[in-house]
Amino acid sequence: MPELRKDPITGRWVIISTDRAKRPNDFVRESVQIKGTGFCPFCYGNEGKTPPEVLAYGRNGTGKDTPGWTVRVVPNKFPALGIEGDLDREGEGLFDRMNGVGAHEVIIETPDHQKTLATLPEQAVEEVLKAYRARVTDLKNDRRFRYILLFKNHGEAAGASLEHTHSQLIALPIVPKRVREEVDNSKRYYEEKERCIFCDMVKQEVETAVRVIGENDQFIAIAPYAPRFPFETWLLPKKHSSSFELQPDSEYGNLAKLLGNILSRLDVVLDRPAYNYVVHTSPIGEEVNDHYHWHIEMMPKLTKVAGFEWGTGFYINPTPPEEAARFLREAQI
Amino acid sequence: MPELRKDPITGRWVIISTDRAKRPNDFVRESVQIKGTGFCPFCYGNEGKTPPEVLAYGRNGTGKDTPGWTVRVVPNKFPALGIEGDLDREGEGLFDRMNGVGAHEVIIETPDHQKTLATLPEQAVEEVLKAYRARVTDLKNDRRFRYILLFKNHGEAAGASLEHTHSQLIALPIVPKRVREEVDNSKRYYEEKERCIFCDMVKQEVETAVRVIGENDQFIAIAPYAPRFPFETWLLPKKHSSSFELQPDSEYGNLAKLLGNILSRLDVVLDRPAYNYVVHTSPIGEEVNDHYHWHIEMMPKLTKVAGFEWGTGFYINPTPPEEAARFLREAQI
Repeated sequence: MPELRKDPITGRWVIISTDRAKRPNDFVRESVQIKGTGFCPFCYGNEGKTPPEVLAYGRNGTGKDTPGWTVRVVPNKFPALGIEGDLDREGEGLFDRMNGVGAHEVIIETPDHQKTLATLPEQAVEEVLKAYRARVTDLKNDRRFRYILLFKNHGEAAGASLEHTHSQLIALPIVPKRVREEVDNSKRYYEEKERCIFCDMVKQEVETAVRVIGENDQFIAIAPYAPRFPFETWLLPKKHSSSFELQPDSEYGNLAKLLGNILSRLDVVLDRPAYNYVVHTSPIGEEVNDHYHWHIEMMPKLTKVAGFEWGTGFYINPTPPEEAARFLREAQI
Repeated sequence: MPELRKDPITGRWVIISTDRAKRPNDFVRESVQIKGTGFCPFCYGNEGKTPPEVLAYGRNGTGKDTPGWTVRVVPNKFPALGIEGDLDREGEGLFDRMNGVGAHEVIIETPDHQKTLATLPEQAVEEVLKAYRARVTDLKNDRRFRYILLFKNHGEAAGASLEHTHSQLIALPIVPKRVREEVDNSKRYYEEKERCIFCDMVKQEVETAVRVIGENDQFIAIAPYAPRFPFETWLLPKKHSSSFELQPDSEYGNLAKLLGNILSRLDVVLDRPAYNYVVHTSPIGEEVNDHYHWHIEMMPKLTKVAGFEWGTGFYINPTPPEEAARFLREAQI
């Protein structure tokens, strides 16, 4: 008998197949392979082919938009939103629209075309996370923005159009629905119990242990109780923390360590899958609060989202999170 | 400058690219081709390879689970939910779960392996729609169910695992989040204005005409104002109607005609794309109401859903619906 499980934060139900649970080798898909053929605008020497950089780490005397960097952030050449202009909200009968004002940037994680976030040294991953923080902190000064989403598409199947490892951020003039729901639901829980729902969840996960994948002093990685996707993994600070960009500086090392570790485990267990991850943090203007707990949601791309999911917002997940966690925990990396 | 548009029913925002709008030929994907090779459990003679049928039309004296049918409905051999058992809700600390009780059926739309819903004669499509209705009406007698979703995955890219044309239904013990949101938001609108928001939308679309794709006496097909996907198309009854299965019998012919017509237009403009559609109707127990308006949402599979969409519930759509509607309206079929 399959099981219906409800995510306590979003209220989203998922169907977990328990009878014919899929193991890692049951998923038919292609491993992400770095081909390294053809022109790459993210490699050394091609800095002129991207829009001018907004941030670079690691340079030692070399000029802007030249080689020598270790992490480099540039505006997306084909941005989903435009950085210039006012919001200009307007109605059109029943409908509402506004100018597509926002920022869309690319964080090039390393100059090395052959590396991935899973194979970079810990210190390089830490630098990527600090570049995330620096860009978020800077963009928050722009009063037009209400939310900044950090995310990563790895592999073509997960929507990456360039193979050179990179993350992205989009600054938005509105708080997106999915984040608003998480924050509002967490707030309701807090109003009732005076506890953060994520803190309660972390506590329960540590106690039952079956869905814990890995942890260190400050961070924990779990398979959530009601995952949308097989091998979905969440990474959270153990101690309450409402905003990614306000996490203490001294803890980025441990965050990088766990992130790299989990990505390596996914690579081993699922043979280098395509994946997406997103950083969910508190909206701008409500950064410090007791109810919302920032986290990273990682989703390997193993299944297809089809009519049932589009029609319901319900997901069918063929791998129970307890099994996914066990595979990832036991991986030899 | 891109545009942010808000769907009035769900409150979902989408980003519409207006500068580099994608035309039909700009999407890289494979056309759905019927290969017809290998064993097919949905073809005549293989009725024994599916679970025993629950409905068949067109038989003339031949026995159950034998050839001679025109439309045939069978339980899914690999159901997402199990038909036996009680709901058994239970808590697990912070978490909620229940038995995965439900029905999962397959509507085989024709015995002809080479046909699609777009190429079937109108009368055959009408029969498919009547099979939808018959199964929904029957399953509503099971008091464990709260919602029945009818949907179709066409083509491998859209999640179809068998190429022989078919639709599916899943009966669920809970009303899915996405439907609940649509119904509740429509209800709020009604409470304020004493009008159905979908009726208002249809009226506005008929007046402005730019997003209308086709219509007949009873039904209209539009590109919605804030579509998630390029060439997304909605099909609605023009007159208020809260439940698909309660639509007057005499109108199924016109519904079949418009559905077939729109699918043919999608085939011509997008060169036989993979697609999903879902039927959104009122939940069980609230079938007759003034605020919710049943409809079909059709989504050709042209783009990849990636980190940004998963993280926000926001969609980036590279084709303005006004252009999509024009292409579909002007298609020579």
